[in-house]
Amino acid sequence: MNNDINKIFGQRVSTLRKQLQISQEELAYKCGFHRTYIGSIERGEKSPTLNTIEKIAKGLNIEIKELFK
Amino acid sequence: MNNDINKIFGQRVSTLRKQLQISQEELAYKCGFHRTYIGSIERGEKSPTLNTIEKIAKGLNIEIKELFK
Repeated sequence: MNNDINKIFGQRVSTLRKQLQISQEELAYKCGFHRTYIGSIERGEKSPTLNTIEKIAKGLNIEIKELFK
Repeated sequence: MNNDINKIFGQRVSTLRKQLQISQEELAYKCGFHRTYIGSIERGEKSPTLNTIEKIAKGLNIEIKELFK
């Protein structure tokens, strides 16, 4: 169960990132993360904190709620 | 900045919990948390992980996106 929501979230981040046509490294840079961190999020390997979710939303130029549609 | 999103989230959880007319302890029980944990979330003292956010949504019988409206 827990892994599922992280995988769903990761896939959503991946989809939105690709819509912006930016790489994982570019999104990580915009979010202030290590360059490999977005990859682990997109693979659902981590359960991001709300602080991290907010940074990803800002990096994607969207509101947090858009990540959960 | 980081504290703000956690406070906004905590206030949203508090509002939705009160609409259900259940106590912090009751919601904690429904989520499988320690009885004091919802209090710290509602005060914005912690940045919950996505796993925790999912459990809170289930405890409130709502979808995650409802927590970010």
